[in-house]
Amino acid sequence: MRVSKLFTKTSKNIPAGEIAKNAQLLIRAGFIHKEIAGVYAYMPLGFRVLENIKKIVREEMNAIGGQEVMMTTLQPKDIWEKTDRWDDAKIDNWFKTKLVNGTELGVGLTHEEPIVDAVSNYLNSYKDMPFSIYQIQNKFRNELRAKSGLLRGREFLMKDMYTFSRTQEEHDQEYEKVIKAYGRIFDRLGIGDITYRTYADGGIFTPKFSDEWQTICDNGEDKIYVDVVKKIAINAEIMNDENLTKLDLKKEDLEEKRGSESGNTFHLESKYTDALGLYYTDEDGLKKSIIMGCFGIGISRLMGIIAEIFSDKDGLMWPENIAPFKTYLVRIGGDKAIDCADKLYDELTGLGIDVLYDDRDVHPGQKFADSELIGVPYRVTVSDRLIETNQYEMVERKNGQKNLLTHQQLLDKLG
Amino acid sequence: MRVSKLFTKTSKNIPAGEIAKNAQLLIRAGFIHKEIAGVYAYMPLGFRVLENIKKIVREEMNAIGGQEVMMTTLQPKDIWEKTDRWDDAKIDNWFKTKLVNGTELGVGLTHEEPIVDAVSNYLNSYKDMPFSIYQIQNKFRNELRAKSGLLRGREFLMKDMYTFSRTQEEHDQEYEKVIKAYGRIFDRLGIGDITYRTYADGGIFTPKFSDEWQTICDNGEDKIYVDVVKKIAINAEIMNDENLTKLDLKKEDLEEKRGSESGNTFHLESKYTDALGLYYTDEDGLKKSIIMGCFGIGISRLMGIIAEIFSDKDGLMWPENIAPFKTYLVRIGGDKAIDCADKLYDELTGLGIDVLYDDRDVHPGQKFADSELIGVPYRVTVSDRLIETNQYEMVERKNGQKNLLTHQQLLDKLG
Repeated sequence: MRVSKLFTKTSKNIPAGEIAKNAQLLIRAGFIHKEIAGVYAYMPLGFRVLENIKKIVREEMNAIGGQEVMMTTLQPKDIWEKTDRWDDAKIDNWFKTKLVNGTELGVGLTHEEPIVDAVSNYLNSYKDMPFSIYQIQNKFRNELRAKSGLLRGREFLMKDMYTFSRTQEEHDQEYEKVIKAYGRIFDRLGIGDITYRTYADGGIFTPKFSDEWQTICDNGEDKIYVDVVKKIAINAEIMNDENLTKLDLKKEDLEEKRGSESGNTFHLESKYTDALGLYYTDEDGLKKSIIMGCFGIGISRLMGIIAEIFSDKDGLMWPENIAPFKTYLVRIGGDKAIDCADKLYDELTGLGIDVLYDDRDVHPGQKFADSELIGVPYRVTVSDRLIETNQYEMVERKNGQKNLLTHQQLLDKLG
Repeated sequence: MRVSKLFTKTSKNIPAGEIAKNAQLLIRAGFIHKEIAGVYAYMPLGFRVLENIKKIVREEMNAIGGQEVMMTTLQPKDIWEKTDRWDDAKIDNWFKTKLVNGTELGVGLTHEEPIVDAVSNYLNSYKDMPFSIYQIQNKFRNELRAKSGLLRGREFLMKDMYTFSRTQEEHDQEYEKVIKAYGRIFDRLGIGDITYRTYADGGIFTPKFSDEWQTICDNGEDKIYVDVVKKIAINAEIMNDENLTKLDLKKEDLEEKRGSESGNTFHLESKYTDALGLYYTDEDGLKKSIIMGCFGIGISRLMGIIAEIFSDKDGLMWPENIAPFKTYLVRIGGDKAIDCADKLYDELTGLGIDVLYDDRDVHPGQKFADSELIGVPYRVTVSDRLIETNQYEMVERKNGQKNLLTHQQLLDKLG
């Protein structure tokens, strides 16, 4: 894409009312636009990052047999009353609305109830399980405060998967399958080495621990203790001698860190299926409870976490797999440079490489600054001077490393 | 995908409370699940169709330079007050909700206001235009009645594009560019020959006609008059002698038809940009109004229209480009047939062909019936008897044509 065509522009000004680094940078670089606190629209650069994250998550969910669906935002009251999650006194962050005739509706804050309700159309026999369903969709949570940019949204994009199993043992196998997929997702997102499977409170449904996925982040909202060698962590909330023993962790091996929750996985037991009257018939014709698991990944939140972590005073530094573009092409000079840059742009895009081509007639310093603020991994410069020596200058955003490359070397590096 | 793994099942029963053919068939075949009237969740088969439609629309919008964004569902009141579209007396199908602190919010029914508001962060000079922005996102409309299945939803998936131009002339060029892309979209969806650009009322913003895209459909909600030779139509609402003269249409060339609106395109003039205070500075430093166009395509509605049109007493008949799977593989017989079908399934999926493989141990009649209800374009049967002659039976869903094919002929046909 040509920068001259991109309708967003960068800004030097810190946006009013934003205290979170991720929101400040993403707004300044033109990735997002604030609608109200905690509610952000995604401009083309931000949209591309979201799509890249979605693609990785989707591939890994499909690889373990997840079946993708799209549930609804508008929610009927009755299914939530069955699980006692309708009353505002019980669930305090609903957005609610009404049909013209006065019927109350919920605005989807999570989807256990509608998923179970939909599945009950189809599931009845032991032969139907195990299976897993997921979606990537907006969630709405009426948070009292929303000052953390994309880290705590009132409207945010989430991947949620739900597994249905016949027995606890089968559930445990499904659970570990998703856990492994999560590991691959965080690796591919470029945060595998700083994201810890973290034991946390399992909630009211199960005596087990649930798992949070905590990404080490100075501004993270959680305190965690990490065992760097075992690559495991424990949330400060459940850190006590009894739990350490249960988890085979030793206090002296643990380091205190701040973490931001990039995913979570829960054992739901049969709470929702029982409450909504969904059972199955086993091989002997007996009615049995169905065991569910629930597995979240905050897609837009991950964009915020990564912006928090991979950034410096000059701007963002996207990991290659999710960057909005792989290369930022800077052109400096007259007709010769224009011609050479145009050709390189056509060649690279023809090879399927995503290039953001700064074809504007502005000062080179502004192009370099925008390239750093937007945080594209590789900046390639074409200039009259470089053309004389048949070279391109490449600068890596993550470490500032500068290299002069021949045409072939450039293609090898980006290909 | 194997049918034994698909968590949805088909049903012979007409779902209670559904009078629309599209909803009846799509629910029976397991494509959608009704949450409340006019609000449907998309199960894996339905999700695949939606994705196929989105892909075509997205490619054509990108091809004319559209920049994809994702606006928000939650909407602040102030921008809608500026255009006088907040008051329920003016716009009677809002869903509204509230923040914890009582602040009123809208639930996005359309996105002109937030798009203009976002663009105002970036746009100020004549150099910035023309450009176009689009998104594919849920819209929410508080309809009094919703009995037409996917044809009139309270929550539905829509592609909406917005163009920004400096002059009326530039707007007209942009407008025609999108119109041409719409033609390509409907062709690729398999409804090009029955979808008419249809002159309709331009609304209050412009003396011009707007364009509806009407797909001929017996159960369509609109009456239109089509000129089959000129491939153009006029909505009955504006059918009068004066307009016919303006549009160079002759009464005697027109045929009355029922149509269902698959898209619409509007001239917005500068109504929204003026109201929200967005202007640009021209070459002479003068403040000028910005001309907008607005271009919708109902993604989920198209799924409903296509289900209405391409179906018979046995079920759905998806056009090849948007079918959830290209091939339905039926296996009949013992170990030999299982082995042969398994191999064919692996081979076809390895070639990138989407196959729904009916590997269930059920009566062949049920497999055939499900194949027809789901409406996959090609049914391929592997049976003990066919194996003896080294043949596969292929039946085309759209015309029932049956052929016996060799392995190579089968690959040629599906490849």
